[in-house]
Amino acid sequence: MLDILKNRSTVRSYKTTPIDESLLNDLLEASIRTSTTGNMQLYSIVITRDEKIKSELSPLHFNQPMIKQAPILMTFCADYNRFDKWCHLRNTDAGCDNFQAFMTAAIDALLVAQTFCVAAESKGLGICYIGTTTYTTSSISKVLNLPKFVVPLATITLGYTDSTPDQVERLPLEAIIHQEQYSDYSEEEIRKHYLAKENLEVNKRFVTENNKQNLAQVFTEIRYTKANFEKFSNELLSAIREQGFEF
Amino acid sequence: MLDILKNRSTVRSYKTTPIDESLLNDLLEASIRTSTTGNMQLYSIVITRDEKIKSELSPLHFNQPMIKQAPILMTFCADYNRFDKWCHLRNTDAGCDNFQAFMTAAIDALLVAQTFCVAAESKGLGICYIGTTTYTTSSISKVLNLPKFVVPLATITLGYTDSTPDQVERLPLEAIIHQEQYSDYSEEEIRKHYLAKENLEVNKRFVTENNKQNLAQVFTEIRYTKANFEKFSNELLSAIREQGFEF
Repeated sequence: MLDILKNRSTVRSYKTTPIDESLLNDLLEASIRTSTTGNMQLYSIVITRDEKIKSELSPLHFNQPMIKQAPILMTFCADYNRFDKWCHLRNTDAGCDNFQAFMTAAIDALLVAQTFCVAAESKGLGICYIGTTTYTTSSISKVLNLPKFVVPLATITLGYTDSTPDQVERLPLEAIIHQEQYSDYSEEEIRKHYLAKENLEVNKRFVTENNKQNLAQVFTEIRYTKANFEKFSNELLSAIREQGFEF
Repeated sequence: MLDILKNRSTVRSYKTTPIDESLLNDLLEASIRTSTTGNMQLYSIVITRDEKIKSELSPLHFNQPMIKQAPILMTFCADYNRFDKWCHLRNTDAGCDNFQAFMTAAIDALLVAQTFCVAAESKGLGICYIGTTTYTTSSISKVLNLPKFVVPLATITLGYTDSTPDQVERLPLEAIIHQEQYSDYSEEEIRKHYLAKENLEVNKRFVTENNKQNLAQVFTEIRYTKANFEKFSNELLSAIREQGFEF
């Protein structure tokens, strides 16, 4: 099992081979054993295969080609709607119109998403997390008919691939792990932790191609700009509030 | 692998058996292959074994006994600090003082946490998510010396157990999964989805013991009250902002 986890990589190109319903069901049954707060299971999973709905979602995921190409798109949502409806039926109120409830449901949804991915990869499937879900949350909610107290947070594409792509680099473990308490990084440690990443040929090429001085600038000036972060912050906050979580 | 996921349950009581360093290292190496946004790895993991620090954390986790009893406590943090320090060293700015950046790092941290748990369970270890991390975020940040742009979001206890506890119930899969788009629940569907849960002897006992009319009220009036949610919402929002994410 650890070998599967260690050797995995994200799959962005899929075969047209459909995914067997009983396998998908099995992966989902395994996923819902994931821990959730108070066993409330504050999440829902929307499975989209329909070409028309995928076409509506595609621009909301910046037209990344795997959206249309993958046989299955899965949207993992924080969901207090189901629990709240149950509470109302039982003459009480979930009290979930607040930020803590949103985060509680968000954690549930994200943990389940990752269990699903691990399960899928253990069965030879490939996945890709689509990082745009928190950028266009309101529009995705409309396309997927999400009611009050449901917020989409993670989208994955799922399918079979011809070959597992090469792994990309990771920071050394010592860059990530802190013993007992957090030990803040000196300049020297930052240099050391990012050295291998900066020296990779593929990353050097990104710097050259983008006419930047270094890899960090590729991230901050091209891929994840402050202007976009601020724009998408406002949109995400609005979307969460639109869905009924007030703060 | 699916069988391990399907048969798992949360472990709240641990043997004193220590966890081998090379095994822990192996689990962590496997975990950091988890997908993250743009491969930025916006998370850190604090591993706490020290009795004194565990004693300081224990009340922040409402003195749940497994905090002190488990050989290892792991706190998974959204972390933009390391990346931001790298950016500054490279004459640029991560632009992360906003809500979108917080959520991006939160997603990274939570997905890694769950991979770690799956990996640990595949090697015979037991884990328990401690749901209090988002209730006392500011105080936990102080005990763990978390700098600006680091927010603790999930804590697990880790250790060996004599026996895996019985599984608790889950809602039926059809309650969780939506095909193509979200199909909102009728009263009849809510009744059906929660029927087995409400009829479990252990859940009926909770209702009686707490002098409530039904299980939903045990959740909303005892375990997760609106008053607590609102209190902890304000505290969590303050904590995230204190750590430098402005919104």
